Amino acid sequence: MVNLTGWHDTIIAPVTAPGTSAIAVIRLSGSKSIEIVSQLCKEKKLEKKHSHTAHFCVLRWEGEVLDEVVVTIFRNPKSFTGEDIVEIGCHGSPYIVKRIIEVCVLLGARPARAGEFTQKAFLNGKMDLAQAEAVADVINAETRAAQRAAMNQMRGGFSIKLSELRERLINFAALIELELDFSDEDVEFADRGALNTLVQELRNETEKLIASFRLGNVVKNGVRVAIIGKPNAGKSTLLNALLNEERAIVSDIPGTTRDTIEEVLNINGILFRLIDTAGIREHSTDLIENLGIERSRVNAEKADIILYLKDMTDATDNEMPWLDAYKSKVIPVGTKFDKWKATNPEQHLNASNNPVSAKDGYGVEQLKELMFEMVVSDQQQIEGNIVTNARHYEALKQMELSLKNIADGLNSNISGDLLAPDIRNCLYHLGTITGQVEIDRDILGTIFGKFCIGK
Amino acid sequence: MVNLTGWHDTIIAPVTAPGTSAIAVIRLSGSKSIEIVSQLCKEKKLEKKHSHTAHFCVLRWEGEVLDEVVVTIFRNPKSFTGEDIVEIGCHGSPYIVKRIIEVCVLLGARPARAGEFTQKAFLNGKMDLAQAEAVADVINAETRAAQRAAMNQMRGGFSIKLSELRERLINFAALIELELDFSDEDVEFADRGALNTLVQELRNETEKLIASFRLGNVVKNGVRVAIIGKPNAGKSTLLNALLNEERAIVSDIPGTTRDTIEEVLNINGILFRLIDTAGIREHSTDLIENLGIERSRVNAEKADIILYLKDMTDATDNEMPWLDAYKSKVIPVGTKFDKWKATNPEQHLNASNNPVSAKDGYGVEQLKELMFEMVVSDQQQIEGNIVTNARHYEALKQMELSLKNIADGLNSNISGDLLAPDIRNCLYHLGTITGQVEIDRDILGTIFGKFCIGK
Repeated sequence: MVNLTGWHDTIIAPVTAPGTSAIAVIRLSGSKSIEIVSQLCKEKKLEKKHSHTAHFCVLRWEGEVLDEVVVTIFRNPKSFTGEDIVEIGCHGSPYIVKRIIEVCVLLGARPARAGEFTQKAFLNGKMDLAQAEAVADVINAETRAAQRAAMNQMRGGFSIKLSELRERLINFAALIELELDFSDEDVEFADRGALNTLVQELRNETEKLIASFRLGNVVKNGVRVAIIGKPNAGKSTLLNALLNEERAIVSDIPGTTRDTIEEVLNINGILFRLIDTAGIREHSTDLIENLGIERSRVNAEKADIILYLKDMTDATDNEMPWLDAYKSKVIPVGTKFDKWKATNPEQHLNASNNPVSAKDGYGVEQLKELMFEMVVSDQQQIEGNIVTNARHYEALKQMELSLKNIADGLNSNISGDLLAPDIRNCLYHLGTITGQVEIDRDILGTIFGKFCIGK
Repeated sequence: MVNLTGWHDTIIAPVTAPGTSAIAVIRLSGSKSIEIVSQLCKEKKLEKKHSHTAHFCVLRWEGEVLDEVVVTIFRNPKSFTGEDIVEIGCHGSPYIVKRIIEVCVLLGARPARAGEFTQKAFLNGKMDLAQAEAVADVINAETRAAQRAAMNQMRGGFSIKLSELRERLINFAALIELELDFSDEDVEFADRGALNTLVQELRNETEKLIASFRLGNVVKNGVRVAIIGKPNAGKSTLLNALLNEERAIVSDIPGTTRDTIEEVLNINGILFRLIDTAGIREHSTDLIENLGIERSRVNAEKADIILYLKDMTDATDNEMPWLDAYKSKVIPVGTKFDKWKATNPEQHLNASNNPVSAKDGYGVEQLKELMFEMVVSDQQQIEGNIVTNARHYEALKQMELSLKNIADGLNSNISGDLLAPDIRNCLYHLGTITGQVEIDRDILGTIFGKFCIGK
């Protein structure tokens, strides 16, 4: 449960990643932040400094030089949280970070909870809930498309869309509620025809957003790709052909990439996670054969896309009947096309098998496009508002239900007092997304608890 | 080898630790840094902003929103490197950090080499070499004593001491060199008596600094402690008694400590690394017994301190004769004192065995003090200048040699032209510490190459 007691406290936390580095940044937010830090470098008179200024300071505490730092001051309300913020850029030593925080806590700051800075920004009206949630997505975005969707949401693109919808419905809601006050007189302030039109529009928009969640998931979490085929079907060669170019692009700027990107392919900003599926050996005992199939089946089941590789030069490479169950997500790939062509110069090529020659790159780009198109039917969509958040998706589904009820009610000419609850419901669910209605503390706790410390 | 070509380039690197976090900071240093970043947020007109000011900016590149960031400007010469510095505080997403650096590199910045920011600070005269070297020590300091020694050196405490020594010798060197110009006339500008006094003083100071290196090593690298005893001698109980209090102090401020501190004990700011030595089983086969002793012997050999535990209640717990070889570093510890006392109320206690009762804490603090005193003979010394750097130690040893030669020469009344080379040598070695003489590029390369990227 979110603990709102003490949300006016001055809080402190490191905001940069832990570990030894050139610089670490410690952030304080709250009315006492400037006062606390200025006690560590009195001669600087930080309390008199303007907002958005940086100051070289030697931080001292009881005769001990804590560090030489740069202190940056952001005064309320022009700060991330809307409160006074002090950021201390110290040497990136875990010992020093710990010491400075310890001393600031002695002087009255409280260690921040996970997500508490962003929660303050939300509670102080610096951003709505959908924007606040997007902060975590921005940080975790691994590709251009994911970063774009998160950035759009954080910068309010998604919220503006929702607010538009909400505003239009609110006008009608007010008129319907007014009818309730005059229920004896049987008047209709709200034009039923116009309401019907609006509800249809809202349903269209809502459905579009709900439909975008499939893409949102792909954008945010990537696409699982199982590569299935016999051991000599050319799996690793294809893998290299798919990855090589990408590896060159990723080429490390030291310090930016923590984990080695091994079998991850970035196609137009979407992350394809290539799952290593053991090749299926045909010439082996039944037991091993069955184990191999079983393992492949599990991967196929979990995958969003199955690349099914068949060696074009190997007549013994037969169909795998068990794959039929996953037909809709299979992309057949004919490998070793260069070899095949050399021995079959006259034979007609079956293009639906997507012939590929990793050796000279033939067909590799087309295959990537095919994989991309399988998950992104409409490139345009990526540019627009995409729902990437499961909480928002659930709220939109609830909205859709209420809208359907309103539409049904209008069709059956029911009275305003029967329409009103569904309109209120619809507004409520819409409001939960941006936090324009009062959000349950438990929900806030769940949302911000998932953030990291310092955010 | 250090590459000094291009040291006027505008360089860029992340300065905070890699990984996903709330904030990451990217630093640019060089004449083009402000120009480069202002191209990403033109409407802010960063090129017109004052030094030490922070600006909220939306960074855009070819229609893509890179991130919402805070840009802080430090103008030459009032910056860490002495050049124009721009720091970009962006969301702590490895993807965003990579993207912003990529775009800045497109606009003319060059990825920084390890230690290059600090090297620029040195080359631009913002700090001397000893101070620059201390920056890395400040970052890596794990305890208060290590941090204090490094901070003292970084803030110039050590350099001031050396400069004093150097200045005084330089005056004499000038007079001696002058004598060389008048060598036909057999004059003595430099007062031999005063020179002799000075050389004695310099030798004293140099020897003190050289002697401090043992402590410096302890302060910087900690102390290896081997705990040796039979399995039931109470090793782990003592370990807990030693560690528990410390563990409480270390108690994590989340995000500050990366690795769990397991068997590390901080006594008065010195790190004692407690090495887990397998207990030596007496009632076992000879082979295992011998293996146990062998393992303990290796640990004893490497250790700075050996805690030799003997169960006071166990008459069969005999001496280990092989430990005699390490007598000078052994601290005997009599364990289970509480039990022993209960059954031997009358017996005279042999305090030289340092009786300890982990159960009620008896003797634990005294033991810690004993361990501390074994490596820090004089607490005062920690407050002063301590040599912690092996390069400085080597230079001081060379200085000592030259000073001895000068002293010997003065005793034998040799002429100025024979004294001069040793005085020059002495000045040279003194100068290499702070970089007041021209330092070989290879040496600079070695020094700064050990730094991390972004420092």
